[in-house]
Amino acid sequence: MGEASEEVILLDFWTSMYGMRARVALEEKQIKYEHKQEDLIGNKSELLLRMNPIHKTIPVLIHDGKPVCESLIAVEYIDEVWKGKASLLPSDPYERAQARFWADFLDKKVYEYGRQVTWSRKGEEPEAAKIGLTNSIKTLEEEALGDKPYFGGDKFGYLDVAVIGLCSWLHTYEIICNFNAATECPKLVAWAKRCMERDSVSKSLPEPKKLYEAILGFKKVFGLD
Amino acid sequence: MGEASEEVILLDFWTSMYGMRARVALEEKQIKYEHKQEDLIGNKSELLLRMNPIHKTIPVLIHDGKPVCESLIAVEYIDEVWKGKASLLPSDPYERAQARFWADFLDKKVYEYGRQVTWSRKGEEPEAAKIGLTNSIKTLEEEALGDKPYFGGDKFGYLDVAVIGLCSWLHTYEIICNFNAATECPKLVAWAKRCMERDSVSKSLPEPKKLYEAILGFKKVFGLD
Repeated sequence: MGEASEEVILLDFWTSMYGMRARVALEEKQIKYEHKQEDLIGNKSELLLRMNPIHKTIPVLIHDGKPVCESLIAVEYIDEVWKGKASLLPSDPYERAQARFWADFLDKKVYEYGRQVTWSRKGEEPEAAKIGLTNSIKTLEEEALGDKPYFGGDKFGYLDVAVIGLCSWLHTYEIICNFNAATECPKLVAWAKRCMERDSVSKSLPEPKKLYEAILGFKKVFGLD
Repeated sequence: MGEASEEVILLDFWTSMYGMRARVALEEKQIKYEHKQEDLIGNKSELLLRMNPIHKTIPVLIHDGKPVCESLIAVEYIDEVWKGKASLLPSDPYERAQARFWADFLDKKVYEYGRQVTWSRKGEEPEAAKIGLTNSIKTLEEEALGDKPYFGGDKFGYLDVAVIGLCSWLHTYEIICNFNAATECPKLVAWAKRCMERDSVSKSLPEPKKLYEAILGFKKVFGLD
């Protein structure tokens, strides 16, 4: 199939740390795509329900009419299909396994705790999840990033794409958990700044303060404030 | 590195549906490995704690001293390292994405509901999880298996390895959820029977009734009966 005939659509929502992965992976590969914002509160599109009938969640990457659901799976798919451009996953099987391990840790720990603290009701903030969130962010910095410029080593890669949502979300987590990223995880903050200098990232991610304000707005709508 | 010098160790526990994946993948590739049973109740080995300090869970595949944690990641690692023998993942990127999607569904839905119903206290059985478990098993059969002999199509592959634990666990889930697999998901039952005829599976999986009795024993130990 020639690239000229390819149709790439991304069903997404702008605050989603999962959607950001797909956006950045597509930009890294310089793939033109149609970006469709979903109305997630009670009015999901017929296209989303048809393309992801199992989970009904974004992001969904639609490539020539065929859906790829779940963000990390979409990133691997993008990397495998558009092979020639800026390879994301390491070529060494052990390094690939390590990158996949930390991406999985991010979803099971960081973003799961993040979900719990973000959508808790005022006065019912789960203290254990706050501690879990700050500790798992610090573990990610210490064990997966360390002194390297990128999670992928010298090169921006798959794990950087997996973690990329933190560039926007860290500010919100700092406020909710009352922790100071600049002093508690300075290497991660430097990494986020480095990433935001990339075109693929800066054009794909929302400004942290705008994201926090939106979250406050959603909490009001949901009666959680 | 020559295969003769390779050391492969699997830290495991015999009832684990996750451990079963690693066992079957190793057997499919005809890889000799040392199988170490862990004492998971309060006495994990020093080796396990050192090899998986983040989650402290089994299975851990240790290849020439280096750990690969998380079962689906271990299966992909095995498939990538021992390439020549019985390829597990489909070669087509879209089919790979689909196989990964359903493996992820299995962990997020089937086994998560399975965990909730198995380890609930007597009289506190979570009814919603029972319904979720039976419905997600049926979804897996209808949407991912269908009329194919294997989840991988004509050929036993990655998704079959991911689902393999159901060959042993289905019996336990039937009793807990009071559902009849033979009538409610006959294609899945036929698939399980087909899989159990493979050497790689039959030598790696426990007998379903023995597994159920062990679960009853563990629930007694934990004071859940």
